[in-house]
Amino acid sequence: MSKATYFHAGCPVCVDAERRFVSALDPARYEVEVVDLGRDKGRLAEAKRAGVQSVPALVIDGAPFHINFGAALSALEA
Amino acid sequence: MSKATYFHAGCPVCVDAERRFVSALDPARYEVEVVDLGRDKGRLAEAKRAGVQSVPALVIDGAPFHINFGAALSALEA
Repeated sequence: MSKATYFHAGCPVCVDAERRFVSALDPARYEVEVVDLGRDKGRLAEAKRAGVQSVPALVIDGAPFHINFGAALSALEA
Repeated sequence: MSKATYFHAGCPVCVDAERRFVSALDPARYEVEVVDLGRDKGRLAEAKRAGVQSVPALVIDGAPFHINFGAALSALEA
């Protein structure tokens, strides 16, 4: 089972990507954790370490994939 | 079975996203077609109609999701 982490910030772009995209991942192979960085700012450092620059983003096996563009991570640090 | 189309142009960003990301989709629910717009320019109009602006992009149920950034679609039309 691989780990995938979906970082978002509750924005419309994020919600749509989660609904259509994250739910499309193979549940037999991927354990998906959903992290709302708007609410859980304690996870910001982890997202940045993984190379996340904007949300929504999906980190699969440690590699960041930015999906469309909702908000820059810097906007969440303010 | 839903249809997902992965549009790419053979760039390193595209190849990485395909390997890690597209292969993570649930094969029980999604039939994935991979289209190389660099070789198959005849599919450019279809990609644009779906709202694709850059590659790599995955179109799921008609909605475009841009993954990271490899190349603008306009660069492929030249």
